[in-house]
Amino acid sequence: MQRYFSKEKKDNKFILQDSDYHHIKTVMRMKENDKVIVVYESNPYLCKINYKDNLVNIEIIKKQEKQEEFINEVTLIIPLLKEQKFDFILQKATELGVSRIIPVKLERTVVKIDQKEEKKLARWKSIVKEASEQSNRNTIPQIEKLTRIEDLPTSDLNIVCSTTEKENKINKIFKNIKKYDKINVVIGPEGGLTIKEEEYLKNIGYIPVTLGSRIMRVETVPIYILSIINYENME
Amino acid sequence: MQRYFSKEKKDNKFILQDSDYHHIKTVMRMKENDKVIVVYESNPYLCKINYKDNLVNIEIIKKQEKQEEFINEVTLIIPLLKEQKFDFILQKATELGVSRIIPVKLERTVVKIDQKEEKKLARWKSIVKEASEQSNRNTIPQIEKLTRIEDLPTSDLNIVCSTTEKENKINKIFKNIKKYDKINVVIGPEGGLTIKEEEYLKNIGYIPVTLGSRIMRVETVPIYILSIINYENME
Repeated sequence: MQRYFSKEKKDNKFILQDSDYHHIKTVMRMKENDKVIVVYESNPYLCKINYKDNLVNIEIIKKQEKQEEFINEVTLIIPLLKEQKFDFILQKATELGVSRIIPVKLERTVVKIDQKEEKKLARWKSIVKEASEQSNRNTIPQIEKLTRIEDLPTSDLNIVCSTTEKENKINKIFKNIKKYDKINVVIGPEGGLTIKEEEYLKNIGYIPVTLGSRIMRVETVPIYILSIINYENME
Repeated sequence: MQRYFSKEKKDNKFILQDSDYHHIKTVMRMKENDKVIVVYESNPYLCKINYKDNLVNIEIIKKQEKQEEFINEVTLIIPLLKEQKFDFILQKATELGVSRIIPVKLERTVVKIDQKEEKKLARWKSIVKEASEQSNRNTIPQIEKLTRIEDLPTSDLNIVCSTTEKENKINKIFKNIKKYDKINVVIGPEGGLTIKEEEYLKNIGYIPVTLGSRIMRVETVPIYILSIINYENME
């Protein structure tokens, strides 16, 4: 069933964004009494469409039981990449349960955004919102502004995917670690992190890990890591 | 370094495909003495370019040490999907070490290929070849013709991603299983396998597994599974 996120409830109705109304009316061509799921304050509600003066109304039928959500709070810290790759990461990471994405400024990042940042951020937010709807999530991942490495947060477990580390394989880390609630994962740009950046992260508590000698494209790495985190923390 | 696959060695030179020569000359604009890696019979060789009468020659400098390859032989059995999704799976599965891909005819497959099969197969082969070059593999995944479910092979370990199975979670399967060399993984189409198809696979030895209650797009599932297989079998 089609899913939408709402931030406002009024009487027994949910208020959606204009783009959602357009989606219901023009893209999905929904009819009177068609059902949708609306997520409000992280809870899904079964609702029905009704039209009043040609405007869409979303009437609540009942609150729904929540599906299993993601156990861990994963923050993905990634460099800016070309639009197509970055969008791909946003979409797949949402599907695989990321909680928060922090784009980070790194020395070897090739892509710049500068003045267009506000516009980009709005675009990114709309991508993760849509991906959340499509993968039946009850939460939308948070996307932070472009952040300097010195301003990165730390968490219960912090790892950085390193291109120089040879010993600390990711499977050893995950299999030896105690349970954690929150994890931060830093992924470097195409040329890798600089030695200085890796040293800095190490100093603030990030464990450098290697994913093995296999070569993965930078946009594949977050999917790989999120798959493993999901898998290792499956009930 | 740019990598190419060759099937022919002559004197101290490798013969490549016409499209590779074009890539070297026109796309990469390589110059005399530029280095490339050529993989021949699954071994990588360091080579240098030289031009003779405006034709590209690939001279062998020396055989290179082999990088770590994939430990398991993974056969991915997937339904036909829309071109973009299917290509995406071919590319990412190659990157994540798939050995063989078998497109399977399933009842709920929407996409048809019929007469165009030979052309499709050639296209798929060129996608995995290119993805193998880009991810520094020494082997190119094999792609089979469209296969009927009754003709599917079995292996040391056979799993089918089920939408009806609730108990057999994938982590339990992998964590309780003895080492295996070869694994076959069946992934269903967007509407899932039919009960009859799942029963059939079960009867020939495929274990139905669930990936949890999370909803993943069909093209994300193979990446998720291959990531886990890689991870679980990391040395």
